[in-house]
Amino acid sequence: MSNKRLWQISESPFQPERLRHFETLFAIGNGYLSARGAFEEAYPGETPATLVHGIFNRAAGKPVPELVNVPNWLPIRISIDGTPFSMQAKARDSLKPEGGALLGHGRTLDLGSATLRRQALFRAESGSIVRICFKRFASLANVHLLAQRVTIEAVEGAPHISIRAALHADARNHDACHLGSKLAFADGDVAAVTATTSQSGYAIALASRLFSPSKVQAANCDEMAALSSEFQLESGGSASFDKLTAIYSSRDLAEPLDAAKRMVGGASAGAYEAHRQAHADCWRDTWSKCDVAIEGDDRAQLAIRFAIYHLLIAAPRQDDDVSIGAKTLSGLGYKGHVFWDTELFVLPLMTLTQPSIARNLLTYRHRRLSGARRKAREFGYAGALFPWESTDTGLETTPKWTDPDADGARIRIWTGETEQHINSDIAYAVLQYWRWTGDDAFMRDKGAEIVLDTAVFWGERAERKRGRYEISRQIGPDEYHENIDNSVFTNRLVQWHLSQAIALIGWLREKAPDVAQRLSAALDLSPSRLAAWRDIIENMHIPFDDEKQIHVQFDGFFDLEYIPVSKYQPRIGGIWGLLGHERILQSQVIKQADVVMLMALLGDEAGSAEVMRNNFNTYYQRTDHGSSLSPAIHAWVAARLGLADIAYEMFERAAAIDLEDNQGNVADGIHAASCGGLWQAIVFGFCGLHIGQGGPAVDPKLPKHWRRVSFSVTYRGKAHHFDVVNPAV
Amino acid sequence: MSNKRLWQISESPFQPERLRHFETLFAIGNGYLSARGAFEEAYPGETPATLVHGIFNRAAGKPVPELVNVPNWLPIRISIDGTPFSMQAKARDSLKPEGGALLGHGRTLDLGSATLRRQALFRAESGSIVRICFKRFASLANVHLLAQRVTIEAVEGAPHISIRAALHADARNHDACHLGSKLAFADGDVAAVTATTSQSGYAIALASRLFSPSKVQAANCDEMAALSSEFQLESGGSASFDKLTAIYSSRDLAEPLDAAKRMVGGASAGAYEAHRQAHADCWRDTWSKCDVAIEGDDRAQLAIRFAIYHLLIAAPRQDDDVSIGAKTLSGLGYKGHVFWDTELFVLPLMTLTQPSIARNLLTYRHRRLSGARRKAREFGYAGALFPWESTDTGLETTPKWTDPDADGARIRIWTGETEQHINSDIAYAVLQYWRWTGDDAFMRDKGAEIVLDTAVFWGERAERKRGRYEISRQIGPDEYHENIDNSVFTNRLVQWHLSQAIALIGWLREKAPDVAQRLSAALDLSPSRLAAWRDIIENMHIPFDDEKQIHVQFDGFFDLEYIPVSKYQPRIGGIWGLLGHERILQSQVIKQADVVMLMALLGDEAGSAEVMRNNFNTYYQRTDHGSSLSPAIHAWVAARLGLADIAYEMFERAAAIDLEDNQGNVADGIHAASCGGLWQAIVFGFCGLHIGQGGPAVDPKLPKHWRRVSFSVTYRGKAHHFDVVNPAV
Repeated sequence: MSNKRLWQISESPFQPERLRHFETLFAIGNGYLSARGAFEEAYPGETPATLVHGIFNRAAGKPVPELVNVPNWLPIRISIDGTPFSMQAKARDSLKPEGGALLGHGRTLDLGSATLRRQALFRAESGSIVRICFKRFASLANVHLLAQRVTIEAVEGAPHISIRAALHADARNHDACHLGSKLAFADGDVAAVTATTSQSGYAIALASRLFSPSKVQAANCDEMAALSSEFQLESGGSASFDKLTAIYSSRDLAEPLDAAKRMVGGASAGAYEAHRQAHADCWRDTWSKCDVAIEGDDRAQLAIRFAIYHLLIAAPRQDDDVSIGAKTLSGLGYKGHVFWDTELFVLPLMTLTQPSIARNLLTYRHRRLSGARRKAREFGYAGALFPWESTDTGLETTPKWTDPDADGARIRIWTGETEQHINSDIAYAVLQYWRWTGDDAFMRDKGAEIVLDTAVFWGERAERKRGRYEISRQIGPDEYHENIDNSVFTNRLVQWHLSQAIALIGWLREKAPDVAQRLSAALDLSPSRLAAWRDIIENMHIPFDDEKQIHVQFDGFFDLEYIPVSKYQPRIGGIWGLLGHERILQSQVIKQADVVMLMALLGDEAGSAEVMRNNFNTYYQRTDHGSSLSPAIHAWVAARLGLADIAYEMFERAAAIDLEDNQGNVADGIHAASCGGLWQAIVFGFCGLHIGQGGPAVDPKLPKHWRRVSFSVTYRGKAHHFDVVNPAV
Repeated sequence: MSNKRLWQISESPFQPERLRHFETLFAIGNGYLSARGAFEEAYPGETPATLVHGIFNRAAGKPVPELVNVPNWLPIRISIDGTPFSMQAKARDSLKPEGGALLGHGRTLDLGSATLRRQALFRAESGSIVRICFKRFASLANVHLLAQRVTIEAVEGAPHISIRAALHADARNHDACHLGSKLAFADGDVAAVTATTSQSGYAIALASRLFSPSKVQAANCDEMAALSSEFQLESGGSASFDKLTAIYSSRDLAEPLDAAKRMVGGASAGAYEAHRQAHADCWRDTWSKCDVAIEGDDRAQLAIRFAIYHLLIAAPRQDDDVSIGAKTLSGLGYKGHVFWDTELFVLPLMTLTQPSIARNLLTYRHRRLSGARRKAREFGYAGALFPWESTDTGLETTPKWTDPDADGARIRIWTGETEQHINSDIAYAVLQYWRWTGDDAFMRDKGAEIVLDTAVFWGERAERKRGRYEISRQIGPDEYHENIDNSVFTNRLVQWHLSQAIALIGWLREKAPDVAQRLSAALDLSPSRLAAWRDIIENMHIPFDDEKQIHVQFDGFFDLEYIPVSKYQPRIGGIWGLLGHERILQSQVIKQADVVMLMALLGDEAGSAEVMRNNFNTYYQRTDHGSSLSPAIHAWVAARLGLADIAYEMFERAAAIDLEDNQGNVADGIHAASCGGLWQAIVFGFCGLHIGQGGPAVDPKLPKHWRRVSFSVTYRGKAHHFDVVNPAV
C-alpha cells in the first residue's frame, strides 16, 4: 500500500457546503452495516445514519418498507475548560474567542484500512488550544463491533476536559420514524439502547463502553444513554479514550441486548488496539484479492479504489439473506431497495474476486422465489417474476406513484409492473457466477431453480403474434420510454435466457438427475413447455433494421423525434429538466442505452462487429446518461469497439459521479451500480478479460496514457493475476 | 503534448464562490501584458484587470506607484432573441425562464497553447437554446495583439443574435483611478480608446476591430467605444465573430493610437486564425525549451506546468527595462512591485532555459543603479543599495506604513529600510546567470557594475565591533523578526558577495582591463577598499553555535520563546492570527527559514553535512511557512539532505498555494516566487542539477513514487536534456 495518496480521500479544510456529500463519501462499514460520515458532536443540517442489512420497516402511512436508520452510536461531546468543541465555532480571528474557535480541521478516509480519521485544532474561551484526533472503524473481523478512539492533546495551556459518549435511540429516517419501544439506560461504564421496528418487529440493541483515563459516570435521559468522564491535561500532555460499541438485532440472535452487553462488557482496556489490528489484517487480505492497480493515471487509480471500497463495505460476508441496495448502505436514497443494479453491476466484482459474497447475494434471490412466484401469479402467469424493487419480504416494493411535488403533482411509476428484464438479469448473474466459479453445488441446489422458474415466466409471458413472439408493454434499461412493445434488450435477453435454461436442464439431467426430476415436477418443465421455449427462441421478434444494420431499441423508436443529445453541452444535470418530461417521452433521447447494455452482456453474441459499431454510433449520440448506470457501461463497450477517446471520456464521467457529485445526489448515497460498472469498464472493457480456451485471458485496449493495470480474479477456485502493460507508453 | 489532462486547468461547473481565484488562475499573457480571466459580459464582484509591464503610476494621495489597470478590452455582450447572456441567469428549472437560464458552463485554460476556452449553454426567454464558445489569447508572436473569437450555435430554435464588443476606458485599480484624459471613439468596424496615466504620464491606446458575419455599427458612450452587429441563426446553424485588439503605450512608440489602429485596420477577416497559428507555434517552441515532464505523479505534473506557464506569461522577451513583480501581472497584489522574489526565485528558470529573458530582467536592475546609489547615499554610504520594492523609477517604493485596519491601526513597515539582503540577492542572480550562460559581454558591460557597486555598499555598511565585522538592524527573509543584529543569512551572503566581487575584479583586469579601469575609477575600487573587503571576509561575524554545531539565525534568537510550530496542526492560515503579532515577535517562530534559504543558495559552501542537517532539523520545526516563498525552498533543501518525506510534503504544499489557494490570497495574483521555487525544488532539489566537471550534471533524489523527470537546460549556449529515472519505481 505504498503511496498513500492513492489510497486516501481527504477533506481539508472543512467544507460545510458539501456536508452531506462528504457524509456519504466518508461512510464506513463492514458488510453488516454502514455508518455515514457524520460528526461525533453533530452539525446543523447533517444526516447521520447507520443502516443494517436486512432491517427494513414500513412506517405507518407509507406505501413501502425502507432500510431503518438505527440508533446513533457516534455521539461524543467534548468540552475544553467548559467550551464545547464545535465545528461552528467561528474562525481564528481573536485570541480569546467567545464560544471557542476552530483553528483547523481535516478528515481522511483511508481506503486501505477502512478507517476514518479526523483532526481538529480548537481554542477554548479560556485560551487553551487542543488538538483532537478522532478515529473510527466498523470492524471487518467482528462485524458487530464499532470502534472509536479520541486523542486530545494540550497544545496550549493545561485544559480541563469533560467528555460525554452517548447512544441516541431516537434515530429517524427523513420523514419517517421506524423505531418503537425505545429504551436507553446506562450503568457504570456501559450504556445501552434497544428499539423495535414498528411494523416489521425487528429488535435492535446497541451497547457502548467508555474506556477513559478517569472515572466514568453513567447518565440517562429518556431516549439517550450517556457515559461521561472528566480529566485534566497538563500543558503539552495528551490523553486518549475509547468508545467501543456492539450492535445486534433479532435477525442475528434471540437476545440482541444481552449479546451486545456481553461483548463490550468482556472487553479490556486494550481492546481498541486489538480490534484495530484484526480489522486492518482483514482489510489487507481483502485488498490482496480485489485491488486494481493503475499506473499512469492517479485520478483513475483513486477512483477505482474508492469504488471498490464502497462495494466492499456493503458486501454481506456472513449473511445470505440480504442483498446490496442501489445506494449501498451509505444513504437513504431508494429506501435501501435492491434493483437489477446488484446482479449486473455489483455482482461481477464479487463473483470474480470473492465468490462466497456473490453466492450470498444470489442466495438472497433464491430465498425470495416465493415472492417472485406470487408476483408472476398476480400477473396471471406461472413461474417467477422478481420484483423490480426488493426488500426483506421478496415482494414487489416499487411505489406506484412518486412523492407529490410542491404543486401536489405525482407521476405514475410503472417499473414495478413492466420493467421485467430483471428476471433475466438475475438469471444472467447466476449463470455468470456458475461459469466463473464452477460451483455446481450452488447451481444444482439453488441457481437452477432461479434460472428455470424465471424462464417459465417468460415462456408464458411471450406473446405469439403475426407468426412470431413479441413481448408488449415493457420498460427496458432506458426508462425514458415506458410500456413500449418489444424492447430489443428484453426480447433478446429472454431469447438468450430460454436457451440457457434448456442447456441447463440438459446439464441437470446428466449431472443431477434427481434434481432435474424434482424441478421438472415442481416447475412443470413438461416436454410441451420446453418445446414452446424452443419455438420462442426460434421465433422471438428481435427489432432490427436490415437496411441500417442496427438493432432497433423497440418497435417505432426511430419514428420519434430525433434529438442529438451531444449538442446540449456543456450541461448541468440531465436533459429532462431541460426539454421537459413530455417531450423526452416522445423523442429518441435515451436515459441509458439498452442496446449498448445488451452488447456489454452478450459480447460477440450480440451481433457482428459491423452491427456492434453501428449500434454504438447510433445510440451513443442519443443517450443522455440520465442514469448513473450508463457511463461506465458505455466506457466498457466503447473500449471493446476500439473507440478509445469515448471510452475514456465515459470512464472519467463515471468516476466523477460519486467523488465529484456530478449528478448532485450523492447526499442520498453512493451509486453502487456506477462503482461496479467502473470495475467492469476496467476489467472487461479496457483489459478485455474473458474466459478463453485455457481459462481467464485478457485482450487489452488500455487508455493511451495508462501504463499498466494489475488485478486478480478467481476462476474455478484458482487465483489468476493479470499484469496488463500498455506497450504504447 | 499528449494526454491533454496534464496540460489543462478547468472549471466546470461555474463556481461563483471562487470567482476571483479563477480570474487569477485563468490569466493569459505574453510577457508584455497579462489579462485576468474575467468574463466577457462582466459579473458582480469581479476584478478584471489587464496589466502592462512598466506602466506604473502614483495616484493622487497615494504614497507609492502601482501597476496600472489599463482600459478593459474584454467586453463582449451577447443577446439571444433579446435576452442578454448572463452567468447570473437562474439555473435550468423552467422551460421558459425569465431572464434566460444558464444550462451549463465550463472553462479550460490550455497551458500548452496559452489559450482560454469557455463554453456556455444558454436558454433565452424565447425558448431558444444557444451554445456560446469564447476563445481568447494574448499573442506571443505579436505581443501587441489580443484576440477573441466567439462562436454561437443555435441548439434549439432560430434565434436573433445581437452582439456588442466594446473597449472601456474607465478602468481603475481597487481604490485608485490612474487614468486621465480618457477618450473613446468608434468608427466603422474599429473602436479605440486612449488614456494617459495621471502622474507618470504614460499614454496607452487600444484599438479593436470586430469581424462579424453581418454589418458592424459603431457607437460611442462617454468612456466606452462599442461595435455592434446583429444576425439571425437558422436552426442548427452557427456563426462566429472575432474581436482583434491592438495595444500600445508611449513606452513602445511615440504615437500608440496610430500604431494600434494601423494594426487592426490592416487585419483581414482571416486574421484570427493566422494569429492563432503563429501564437501556438511560439508556445510550442517555448515549451520545448522549458517543459518539465514528470511520470508517476499527475498532480505534480500539472502543478509544475501551471507554475512555468504563469512565469512565462509574465516574462518580458523584448523589453530589458521591466521586471516581474511578486504577483506577476496576474493581480493587483503588492501593486506590481518587484522584490528579491524575481532574482532568487523566478530568474533561475529563465537563466537555465531562456537566458535572453534572464538578461532582460538583470538589465532592468542595471538600468536602475542610479536609484540604488541614491538610496545608499541617503543612508550615508557609497555604492548601491537596491530598493526592497522596485517599480519603473528604480527608487525605493516600499510604503512606510500598512493601510489602516478597521480600527484605523497601522503597522510600521521596515523592509524598505532594513531588508538589505536584496543587494546580495541581485548579485547572486548576476553571478548565477554568468556561470550558466558564460555571457562575458553582459558581465563586462553590466553585470560587473551591479556586483561591484552593491559590494561597495556592503564594504561601508559592515560595522567593525569587538574585533569583528557585524551588520546591525537587518531584516532577513524571516520577516517575523525585524531590525535584528547580525542576520546569519545577510552576514554570510555579504561575505560571499565580497569574495565574489574580488574574484570578479581579477577577471575583469585580465579579460577587460579597460572596463576594470573604468569601474575602479567610477566606483572607487581603491586598493584600500579591496583590503577592507578582504578584512571583512576574514572577520565577518557569522552567528554559530559551536556546541550545537548549528548556525544561529541572528544574535539572541535562541533566547526567545520556543514554540514548536508543528504542534499547531491542522491549521488554517498562518500562525500569526493564532498567537498574535506581539507574541510572535518575541518567539522563535520563523516566517521562512533564513538558514534554509542560505543552504539552498550556497549548497556545500554553507557548511558541513552535519551542520546542514542540524540546521534543517532545528529551524524546520520553528518555521510557520507564513510566506509563500518558504515551502518550495524547504522541499529543495530537504531533498538534498535526503529527507524525502518532508521534501515531498513541502513540495505538495508549494504546489497547492495557487491551485488550491491554500493561503486564501490568490485573488490578488499568482505567487511568482512559489512558482519559481517549485521549478527549483524539482530541478535543483529532487534532480540535484549542478555544474560538474563536464558541465551540467544531476544527482537525483526523486520522491519515491516518481518514475521519471525530464527537462532541458541551456549551459553556455548548448542545450542539455536530462531524463532522470527513478530506479526504485
